[in-house]
Amino acid sequence: MSIIVLGTVALDTVKTPFGIRKHMLGGSAVHFAMAARLFTDVNLVAIIGEDFPLRYIEFLHKKGINLTSLIKGKGKTFKWEGEYKGDLNTALTLNTELGVLSTFRPVISQEQKKIKHIFLANVDPDIQKHLLKCMHAPTLVGLDSMNYWINHKRKALLHILKKVNIYVANDQEARSLSGESNLLKAAQYLRALGPQMILIKKGEHGVLFLSDKFTPPRARGAGPIFSIPAYPTAKVIDPTGAGDTFAGGFMGYLTRVKRINESSIKKAIAYGTIAASFNIEDFGVNKTAYLTRKDLEQRLAKFRKCVLF
Amino acid sequence: MSIIVLGTVALDTVKTPFGIRKHMLGGSAVHFAMAARLFTDVNLVAIIGEDFPLRYIEFLHKKGINLTSLIKGKGKTFKWEGEYKGDLNTALTLNTELGVLSTFRPVISQEQKKIKHIFLANVDPDIQKHLLKCMHAPTLVGLDSMNYWINHKRKALLHILKKVNIYVANDQEARSLSGESNLLKAAQYLRALGPQMILIKKGEHGVLFLSDKFTPPRARGAGPIFSIPAYPTAKVIDPTGAGDTFAGGFMGYLTRVKRINESSIKKAIAYGTIAASFNIEDFGVNKTAYLTRKDLEQRLAKFRKCVLF
Repeated sequence: MSIIVLGTVALDTVKTPFGIRKHMLGGSAVHFAMAARLFTDVNLVAIIGEDFPLRYIEFLHKKGINLTSLIKGKGKTFKWEGEYKGDLNTALTLNTELGVLSTFRPVISQEQKKIKHIFLANVDPDIQKHLLKCMHAPTLVGLDSMNYWINHKRKALLHILKKVNIYVANDQEARSLSGESNLLKAAQYLRALGPQMILIKKGEHGVLFLSDKFTPPRARGAGPIFSIPAYPTAKVIDPTGAGDTFAGGFMGYLTRVKRINESSIKKAIAYGTIAASFNIEDFGVNKTAYLTRKDLEQRLAKFRKCVLF
Repeated sequence: MSIIVLGTVALDTVKTPFGIRKHMLGGSAVHFAMAARLFTDVNLVAIIGEDFPLRYIEFLHKKGINLTSLIKGKGKTFKWEGEYKGDLNTALTLNTELGVLSTFRPVISQEQKKIKHIFLANVDPDIQKHLLKCMHAPTLVGLDSMNYWINHKRKALLHILKKVNIYVANDQEARSLSGESNLLKAAQYLRALGPQMILIKKGEHGVLFLSDKFTPPRARGAGPIFSIPAYPTAKVIDPTGAGDTFAGGFMGYLTRVKRINESSIKKAIAYGTIAASFNIEDFGVNKTAYLTRKDLEQRLAKFRKCVLF
């Protein structure tokens, strides 16, 4: 099995209390891929500009990422510049240069159209919709978005939400789209928008999952609820991409397992949590790019001791 | 085994989006007692004023709480008035009338002095210290405090922290006293102040526990870490006293078990979490006063399904 991820490949400039890094390899698709590659073959669908360093392409290639559908556009690579202060929970965006991203229209190979699992990371909902239409018969579709699209392309976002299985949102986005401050109510609201599975990422507080996929038909919004805390760590250097890394571990694991059920979903959440806990320990993909399955398994065993009673 | 709790007995006026209730039975010692009574005999040490309704005394008596050391002082009962808005996570204090609390000096019986487990709920650190001195040979001492004492009686608080086994703080208090924004670092800092066990309550996000009591001697601040999410619920009516209810379930369970070790601590956290999840479902003690062990066990089983993987 393999997975396809649509998202951004970016040059990130990040300032945290631990230092500043300029034009690091980043973007939602890259962070996702670094975690998902530990479980499955990853096909990356994204656009870069003419200024994108060749060494980053070689790096992604060496990591085993399929770059067939990584397009080079005319113009500059998407750039994001942000800063974290205090508890490093919230990024302050200092600057965004869309560059080639504003003209991006994904093109994938005939082989890739047959892939069953797909993750639509945060890009314009119209681009997400376009790619989803290209797929022949996807069986598991995950989607991420951001406040910008919730506010500026709400209609397009609501439309594509009807066509996906899993919606991955952070707590702010879930509250913003639903208008509910209680996160369980927010998840129930989002469930009613279409996706059978709702995953709300709460940063340092872990993940809330809601689904009625695994229960007999009953009232909308009912069904199993999982709540899993984050891996407790005092080492937070740069949280950029933690959410995408979580999604990569989560979707990657689900692509590897034979059956998607309550038990494998819970384990997928745990793997995503662990992958994200490594991501925040260094700038950009400095940590996740060198992770092994063994690293994940070792920390998962520690995590179990922290949270099981 | 029995437990002694020092704290407030109050008349609470609470406004939430679900209504307003005037002069309800409240206070840290009352909320603690409603949960702890499900596991052990509870001895309440507090002061009330001349205006305290007799029906509340009868009510506490009927709940099996030992009221030997509930003093009636000259003046009015301690009153708190607060409001919750939005996600009901933070209380806005509208008014506080200390009344008899300002002259409170606890007096307990010779029998009570022999009790081994004690919880010093939120009152002036000098009062906490006074009661602790009365005890003959306590083996498990828990302490709660609040931002007011951290800011205004820091020295007295630091002094008593050296003499307790468990410090129960909410996330704001932990950050305020430690100066650390990362909660694990905050817990490590608080551990260094004396208590072998640190419990940080994160409201809707659950609990973080740190201790080195159960590990061989090593670096200060090391040792087991547990992180347990809150019970996921959409029903939040009035969160007043949730932290004290948690502490009551936690300390109550530890008073019942034969051995205090990693396993029983984790289970105590789970019971505290479940007790608190009931508390927030109605105003004041309306829900917890009628709880049974069976209610706790049933919800604990549901909770396990939510959080174990």
